[in-house]
Amino acid sequence: MNSFAIGVDLGGTNLRIAAVNASGGVLEKVSTDAEVTRGRDYVLDEMCKNVSAMAGKFGGAGRAVGIGIGVPGIIDRQTGMVHESPNLPGWRDYPVRDEIERRLRTNVILENDANAAALGEKWLGVASQVDDLCMLTLGTGVGGGLVLQGKIWHGMTGMAGELGHITVDPHGVKCGCGNYGCLEQYASATAVKRMASEAVARGEAPELARAMNRDPEFSAKAIYQMAVESDEAALKIFRKVGQALGIALANMINILNLPMYVIGGGMANAWDVFAPALLDQVQKRSFVYTATAREDIMRIEKNSPSSAQTRTTAIARASLGSDAGLLGAARLAMIASVDPSRPEPNHASAGVGSGH
Amino acid sequence: MNSFAIGVDLGGTNLRIAAVNASGGVLEKVSTDAEVTRGRDYVLDEMCKNVSAMAGKFGGAGRAVGIGIGVPGIIDRQTGMVHESPNLPGWRDYPVRDEIERRLRTNVILENDANAAALGEKWLGVASQVDDLCMLTLGTGVGGGLVLQGKIWHGMTGMAGELGHITVDPHGVKCGCGNYGCLEQYASATAVKRMASEAVARGEAPELARAMNRDPEFSAKAIYQMAVESDEAALKIFRKVGQALGIALANMINILNLPMYVIGGGMANAWDVFAPALLDQVQKRSFVYTATAREDIMRIEKNSPSSAQTRTTAIARASLGSDAGLLGAARLAMIASVDPSRPEPNHASAGVGSGH
Repeated sequence: MNSFAIGVDLGGTNLRIAAVNASGGVLEKVSTDAEVTRGRDYVLDEMCKNVSAMAGKFGGAGRAVGIGIGVPGIIDRQTGMVHESPNLPGWRDYPVRDEIERRLRTNVILENDANAAALGEKWLGVASQVDDLCMLTLGTGVGGGLVLQGKIWHGMTGMAGELGHITVDPHGVKCGCGNYGCLEQYASATAVKRMASEAVARGEAPELARAMNRDPEFSAKAIYQMAVESDEAALKIFRKVGQALGIALANMINILNLPMYVIGGGMANAWDVFAPALLDQVQKRSFVYTATAREDIMRIEKNSPSSAQTRTTAIARASLGSDAGLLGAARLAMIASVDPSRPEPNHASAGVGSGH
Repeated sequence: MNSFAIGVDLGGTNLRIAAVNASGGVLEKVSTDAEVTRGRDYVLDEMCKNVSAMAGKFGGAGRAVGIGIGVPGIIDRQTGMVHESPNLPGWRDYPVRDEIERRLRTNVILENDANAAALGEKWLGVASQVDDLCMLTLGTGVGGGLVLQGKIWHGMTGMAGELGHITVDPHGVKCGCGNYGCLEQYASATAVKRMASEAVARGEAPELARAMNRDPEFSAKAIYQMAVESDEAALKIFRKVGQALGIALANMINILNLPMYVIGGGMANAWDVFAPALLDQVQKRSFVYTATAREDIMRIEKNSPSSAQTRTTAIARASLGSDAGLLGAARLAMIASVDPSRPEPNHASAGVGSGH
């Protein structure tokens, strides 16, 4: 019997939903404008409505085995609640999983979005040939996910993979988490904009200053464009991005000795301008890397020979783009549906949303 | 049938061997003066002679299931060779495991000494109630071992757990590995002595200067004694030790979210003088720690309630002292003897050294 799962990516700006079959084929994908700023109940209503419609549409083609939801926060997997998420005010201590299970009458898995993205890249992306990987997602913040022996590594309380808060400079910029010099303060889109403003304020970046005056909404993407056009101040910012990533990655390589480290998220689009500094730092700072490195940063294509077979350390750009989390979330629902140790849903599964 | 294993700890200054039964009881322990500086062949001869004698002595009491050997270097587990070890010149690319198996006609497991110590603490020490732990061994250098889901995490090429080379200050002291600011440059006995010499050279440490003049062999232990006696310059050095450890531990907590981090090795004897700065840094730098912390650094006694049950992050001093590696090595031999996936020995097992 054909089966499929629903993957949901609950982003800061929109809600994306896909029906995904067992081999990773996307049957349908929708993106709604359900901004989280419109509140928990509105987002949950939209989510359930869209999931239900999608499941109904494909109900004739097979069975929906469950729903996986990537959430930008720390999940308490025992209670199915969002434990901590600055991006989801009002969601804390609310029984998210149970409520969705109640409404849609099927298994629901909540997962941190970066963890889901790491699993997505392992399933269908650049990391499909390895069992162990670390993924950094560079966006507004910096998220992280670890997959060890094919499974997401959650740690004791679901807080593993907080890679954006690795200290890359103990005397560095203050972070929202309380620490100084977190990776997130140097390698997120937010950090790129901050570093650009600082360079402008120091009078070191005339082109950046002009561009900022023209466009108050000046984005990290625009700064990247200037770096591509060889603006020295913009290039310097992305060198800093690469250096910070390199320090953090060197640490992870020395600690974990994994075959692959994946860099994704929107900021990964600036790969060309930060990767050289990243590689330089990793080579200088990790003898585990140099003992296992290829000559150059790998841009591994899907289905290429695996680095695990060749026992080299690969640092690779993610290949699934913004779909990684969506696909990883769907994959989680599939895994749970065949895992005898999964918790019982609160309500007997009768197909997603049927009879609703 | 009673069975026992032989554990070997191949240290820089001596060779220690123990016969250990299945419940961790030490039947006998010997320490020889087989310094590694006397060369590979001499050390191997001494090791085989002593192991053989010990196995013979207890042969009547049960069966020796194998030998585990903790080695201060990186092990290639596929070939049974020492891949890299500055402390073992002349051992590289020599078939250590096969040669010992040939001589003693039993299974031999080679393991990095810090990994063996981590497993020892998990088996019989402070970490006996958790399945996941990270151990730092502070000695001449800083070693590390990870135990995940009850097993040593080796990584792709056996190089996981190089925790002494976590960058704690990107602009810090140059390390032998090529990096700048490695943990080992601040938290090893060697580093303590270097920091003392630097303080003396800067004229900041009159008491340390006097002590050094009296004793050219001035040790980290002597500097610790002065810290205990409230010498400010000595205290400052151990605060630096604690700060560096705290930065490294905060990173590991944010990355892995384990229930326990163990600090062992000879330098752990200075726990009282470095632990406060360590805890201070971890609290400032890891929100994963503060979200899961007890009020104070734990000094968990064996058989106390586990931190895993209470879902707190424990930072604990090792409890087995210098026996951790010896016991962990013996444990590895026991595990291998009941693991159907273990590689076949080159020679049929007929009991350690029997007929030899």
